[in-house]
This record gives sequence, structure tokens and C-alpha cells, in this order.
Amino acid sequence: MNNKPNLQTVRNYLLQLQDDICENLASVDGGDGFLEDSWERDAGGGGRSRVLEDGVVFEKAGVNFSHVHGEQLPGSATAARPELAGRGFEALGVSLVIHPRNPYVPTSHANVRFFLAEKPGESPVWWFGGGYDLTPYYGFEEDAIHWHRTARAACEPFGDNVYAKYKQWCDEYFFLKHRNEPRGIGGLFFDDLNQWGFDRSFAFMQAIGNSYLDAYLPIVEKRKEIAYGERERDFQLYRRGRYVEFNLVYDRGTLFGLQSGGRTESILMSLPPLVTWRYDWQPEPGTPEAELYDKFLVPRDWIQG
Amino acid sequence: MNNKPNLQTVRNYLLQLQDDICENLASVDGGDGFLEDSWERDAGGGGRSRVLEDGVVFEKAGVNFSHVHGEQLPGSATAARPELAGRGFEALGVSLVIHPRNPYVPTSHANVRFFLAEKPGESPVWWFGGGYDLTPYYGFEEDAIHWHRTARAACEPFGDNVYAKYKQWCDEYFFLKHRNEPRGIGGLFFDDLNQWGFDRSFAFMQAIGNSYLDAYLPIVEKRKEIAYGERERDFQLYRRGRYVEFNLVYDRGTLFGLQSGGRTESILMSLPPLVTWRYDWQPEPGTPEAELYDKFLVPRDWIQG
Repeated sequence: MNNKPNLQTVRNYLLQLQDDICENLASVDGGDGFLEDSWERDAGGGGRSRVLEDGVVFEKAGVNFSHVHGEQLPGSATAARPELAGRGFEALGVSLVIHPRNPYVPTSHANVRFFLAEKPGESPVWWFGGGYDLTPYYGFEEDAIHWHRTARAACEPFGDNVYAKYKQWCDEYFFLKHRNEPRGIGGLFFDDLNQWGFDRSFAFMQAIGNSYLDAYLPIVEKRKEIAYGERERDFQLYRRGRYVEFNLVYDRGTLFGLQSGGRTESILMSLPPLVTWRYDWQPEPGTPEAELYDKFLVPRDWIQG
Repeated sequence: MNNKPNLQTVRNYLLQLQDDICENLASVDGGDGFLEDSWERDAGGGGRSRVLEDGVVFEKAGVNFSHVHGEQLPGSATAARPELAGRGFEALGVSLVIHPRNPYVPTSHANVRFFLAEKPGESPVWWFGGGYDLTPYYGFEEDAIHWHRTARAACEPFGDNVYAKYKQWCDEYFFLKHRNEPRGIGGLFFDDLNQWGFDRSFAFMQAIGNSYLDAYLPIVEKRKEIAYGERERDFQLYRRGRYVEFNLVYDRGTLFGLQSGGRTESILMSLPPLVTWRYDWQPEPGTPEAELYDKFLVPRDWIQG
């Protein structure tokens, strides 16, 4: 087992992952594809932002690579070890949010990241984090099962309880306290991963990064042609409000980006293209919209056996 | 000078202010008027929320009265005296945000509030806060001047520097750091006001509350019939995104409400009805949209002499 962190290898993997994901999404979309913006950060580092707007299948898809370094690690970067806040750091990651046009296709988010926190005279501390989660507007049990089965398969080589642990962490993390409501049907979330040593931890991050498309694309393909009308569109725009609320009020990655002087347009690329807020709206009981709340936005084990 | 805080008198004033403001706004709107929801909070207190949605002039107008008490004052309630955090408290206020339909009519926000922080064996600590600010989509110098002149006139009886001080505080408070951009053309913001004694401080809060309609309605009347098209509407929806970003990332009142277990639907009534986010959008130089950034979203003294 090799415990020495190799930043360049992680960087190369992340750039390749961004390429693979964009290529596949652009191919499914069938439109003009992604625009790329490379940027540099005054305080150090930079990134490669890619955005697809107003596509055929995807109304907005943002897939960001960033590699920033700074002199003071913000507290939002590591909840588990607040004593590291204030250290010099390097942070590398790929982060993406996909907002499809058709309300029957769920929104998805994925992120894989690597942190290195340094202090003169002490050994560097490093860790991996990441995961993915799914946010349907109209729920399909078989899609939720497929999503979680793919997540579990990616975790399986790393131990029997890995999926269960990171599935639960995801449920806890993607939760809107002020709504008492999960963001969606969850998936995986992990952070502060270093206990397996560098090689194995890095392999796990790759397993998560590499399985995202396997988890998401079959669902996109299956739902993207379903006919919908104003009612479904209205519900989608309303539910997108929850996504905005989560990302701006709770999301650690968003807050880390804004606090660390990140590139605002890249960070807020996660926000949906068109959103509504309606006062105190509730779905009518017995409708497909109510079913989302009753059957999907509740803690559930999506796979048994 | 009477320094003894009279909570019931403040409460009565605030309920009357909510009535006056709603009556006037409904009259200008000419539609179905406000719906009212009274609510109680599990942890203590309650409120009277009023919302006008899909009106003729106003696309969404929320005017809230709330009176909550709790056992632990959240840190967001007083930035100036963090030592009060954790005390028992009462918080009363009226808070409103108006989102007009016509992009030539600016969005406005006003708030007046009273806090009482108590601790067994110690004298209660009280203070007033409040203010109002204006967020145009298309700028009119005469409107900005009228808005600030009205604010200054309300402050004048309370001292020569009162307007200047609270105008500057407003500029500092309603600022989106991650955009390096003010929310609008400002107005007044004050907090932790108790140095004038209770009677005079309360009179000041009333002067601010009472002058809000004088500041806002003439601007609404002057701009509400201007013809507009898709271009102006698109710009309005895009700029509304900044309002969401400010309220969810920075606004102390919103964070106080969410942290203190407030009523989510009332707190988030401030969010616009329909919003867009576009990646890295910039107005074309020389357009009216660019003028908003160049001439209005900059620190300015709107009234000289």
C-alpha cells in the first residue's frame, strides 16, 4: 500500500474524467455540445469550466474541473477536522450538475475531489471526497433501483458496508432542514477519506467517478422522449427552487467555492436555468406530484439483496 | 426620555403598518389583493403572512408580520453584540419584498424590527433595526433621487448625519461579495439602535416604516405602464437571480428566520416568482442593460444638497 499522495496523477485522472463525461453527455444531447472556459484564479490555480446551455435533452449541464490552492483552508472544506482550517491547501475536483429539459428526466449531480492541507514542519494531510445523487421530478422506482444498484456495485470491491455507509451519509447531507425534506433519492456521499491509504482511496474515488455515467445515462435514455405538458413543466420549475435553496444555503462545495474566492460563474453553474417560487404550494393528494413527496422524498432502502 | 421598552406598543404599530402597506399596495395593484395566513410557531410566537401573487402590477408581493420568541438568540440576530447570542429573546417585525411584473418598475424591500434579549438576573437588552432598499432593472436617475430624498427626509428630524450613516450601512449590507456588486441603489439600513433611548428609537423606526410607501409608490405609478418586450423581461428574470443569491447566501433576516425555526414559506416569500440563471452572461456595452451596471450598481451619492 502506498500512502504517498500523488497530486499529478489525481489531476490527470480528473481532466480525463471531465473529457469522458462531457463527450458522453454531448453525444446523448445531440446538440451543439459544450462550451469551454479556462480560467485562472488571482489567489492561485484555475480551472476548466464546460457548460452546455439550451441543448436538446439538457437545458443546462455544467461540468467543471478546478485546481485551486490557497493559504487558508476555509472551514467548509472539512467538517470532520476543523483543526485543519487555516492551513495552506490544494483542492482539485470535478463537479457537475445536469438539468434536463424533460421533467421526466431527473436532475443529477456528481463530484469527486482531492484535498491536500499543508503546514510548514508537519506532514501534509490529504483526503478524498465525492459522490453522486439523483433528484427526480416524477419518480420511477426502477430508475431509483438502477441508480442505487450502480452505486452499490461501484462500492462493492471496497468492502461490504461501504455502500450502506455512504448511502446514509448522502441522505443526511442532501437534506433541506428548513423544508424537512431530502433533495432527492440520494446516492453516495463520502468525505475525509484517507484511512485506506492513498492508492486504495484514489481507486475508490475513480470507481465513483467512472460509474456516474453508468448510473445516469440509462435513465436519461429511458425517459427523455416521454411527452409532457405545462403541468409537468410547472412542477419541474417549482421543484428546481429546492435545488437553488439547497445549493445556496447548505452545500459545502458551493460555500467553499464562494468563501475561497473561487470563480463565481463556475460555482453557480449548478443553478437551474429557469426556476419558480410559489407561496405555500402543495400537490393535490393522489397526483403524480404528491407521489414524489410520498414515495420518493422519504428515507428508503432502494435495494434489498 | 423614556428608556423602558414597551413591546405591546411596538406590536400594535407593526400590525397597523402591515395593514396600511397592504391596503395601499392592493389599491395600486387593482387585482384580487392579498391572501392572509396566520400561523403559530411550535417554539413560541407566530405571525400574519400576507401574499399577493400574480397581480396586475405586482407579480409577487409578500408583507409579513411576525412575533417570535425563543430560548436561544441566534448569532445572526446581532452582529454587533455576539455576547447576546444564546439569550432568551422576543423578535417582532414587518418585512416585505415586492416583485413587480413590469421590468421598468424596481423591486423594493423594507423591514422594521424590534428585539428584546433577556437573561435571568440581568436587565433586558433591546434594540431596533430596519430600513429599505431599491433594486431597479432599468435605472432612472430621478427615481433614485426621489427614493433617497424620501429616505433622507425621514431621517432628518433625528440628526444631521443619520441619513448619511444609514445610507452607507445599506450600501455595505446589500452587497454581493461573490459578484463584487451591490444589490441595487440602496436606501437605508440600521441595526442595534438603542443609544437614543426607547421613545426616540421607536419614533425613528416608525419614521422609516411610515415613509416606505412615500418612497416607493410614486415610482411604481410612474413606470408601471411603460411598454416592454421579451428583452426587458429576460433581463428582469436574469437580474432576479441576484436577489435569490443575496437572500439565501447573505441576508441576516433570512438566515435568522431559517436558523430560529421560523416559518419557511413566510421567510422565503421574498424570493421572486420566476428566475433565470445564464452562464457568464454580460450585457452588451452601450445598452440600457449595461447602463444599469455602469451608472446604478455603483456606489453613488444620489442627493447633493
